[in-house]
Amino acid sequence: MGLGVRAAPFTYVAHALAVAAAAMVVVWCVHFRGGLAFEASNKNLIFNVHPVLMLIGYIILGSEAIMVYKVLPTWNHDTTKLIHLILHGIALVLGVVGIYCAFKFHNESGIANLYSLHSWLGIGTICLYGIQWVFGFLAFFFPGAAPNVRRGALPWHILFGMFVYILALATAELGFLEKLTFLQSSGLDKYGAEAFLVNFTALVVVLFGASVVVAAVAPARLEEPQGYAPIPEN
Amino acid sequence: MGLGVRAAPFTYVAHALAVAAAAMVVVWCVHFRGGLAFEASNKNLIFNVHPVLMLIGYIILGSEAIMVYKVLPTWNHDTTKLIHLILHGIALVLGVVGIYCAFKFHNESGIANLYSLHSWLGIGTICLYGIQWVFGFLAFFFPGAAPNVRRGALPWHILFGMFVYILALATAELGFLEKLTFLQSSGLDKYGAEAFLVNFTALVVVLFGASVVVAAVAPARLEEPQGYAPIPEN
Repeated sequence: MGLGVRAAPFTYVAHALAVAAAAMVVVWCVHFRGGLAFEASNKNLIFNVHPVLMLIGYIILGSEAIMVYKVLPTWNHDTTKLIHLILHGIALVLGVVGIYCAFKFHNESGIANLYSLHSWLGIGTICLYGIQWVFGFLAFFFPGAAPNVRRGALPWHILFGMFVYILALATAELGFLEKLTFLQSSGLDKYGAEAFLVNFTALVVVLFGASVVVAAVAPARLEEPQGYAPIPEN
Repeated sequence: MGLGVRAAPFTYVAHALAVAAAAMVVVWCVHFRGGLAFEASNKNLIFNVHPVLMLIGYIILGSEAIMVYKVLPTWNHDTTKLIHLILHGIALVLGVVGIYCAFKFHNESGIANLYSLHSWLGIGTICLYGIQWVFGFLAFFFPGAAPNVRRGALPWHILFGMFVYILALATAELGFLEKLTFLQSSGLDKYGAEAFLVNFTALVVVLFGASVVVAAVAPARLEEPQGYAPIPEN
């Protein structure tokens, strides 16, 4: 995009918004929704693990993985690549556990599974995320493709990653709205403190995601107009 | 992003998905939801104007406006700029009318306004869309800023436009989910034909939006690696 702006300021904004979003989702699930549990007679506590893990584990850790090349531009490339790989791996595992909690809540509460757009996009996104991780591992880490293949694959890895990331953000937004709609249909005050907290959390997540996308597209140094360091010829 | 791919194939995919999405939303609102009306004793018919205008008028026309430089790359630049401006203007007006229909439906049915994330993001997005249109009109059309200002502003116009466009797509997704959740809470079959139609429409809209974003970011010609033709120096 040849933005003529550096990624660094957007990474600072993203970190701050990530802290805010993480705090807001914990306040929501613990203070307003009664806390978190893997096993409980109050099945809502099992559900509460879902938004916390999906936001903090999947979205925020995955975002930090995306931004690591812009956050630590002076570090050795192999080190940042390893951090990128490990953070995305942890995000993937926590995302799977978070999704499992949603199914567990549904099954133990007698609620149908997989009928909503949120669930469809969520399952699709985590599958694409896993495919992208395995592809990245094989092509760029071990055993690693030939340099010319990696050069050709890198822009597609970034583009496909952005696509999956934006789908994950959209899924998160749908999740906030879906849960809040259920709560409001069950009598929660439409203009009450909890409704405002959830909607503002969702807004912070959108702004966070936009900062991450801009940080990913903008170059770490202005002499790298492609937004990433190309894989060298030799 | 230096993609090394041309925009053209993505514009073909986008046009096809736009036709599919437009057909699907019309089938939903006319066949399943009873049709469209500005004045009716059945207030649901007033609501039905909302998704049709927002998708076909606002999202699809706005998308075609975004892609016009990639769809007609050999046309005179002033002509494509004028088409870009006019299509976005029509999209903005139809979007405002579509939002008015949602308020009209709420007010005539005794439903609260502006409590959901969909409504918040929707109002925010159309305001940003209007600001972007006015800014683009003043800077690039009439009276038009000095060439060096326009050169500096163009990447930001594109970046901010992408940001608003992605917010509009997210708002549309939230709208599909919100309406379907209401219908399912009122007894609509969670796995019935209408639920599948709405969810698949939303999926087509996501894929459509992704094609539009890639077409906008990818260059019309491979010798323009920035994805747009820079404003000349003289």
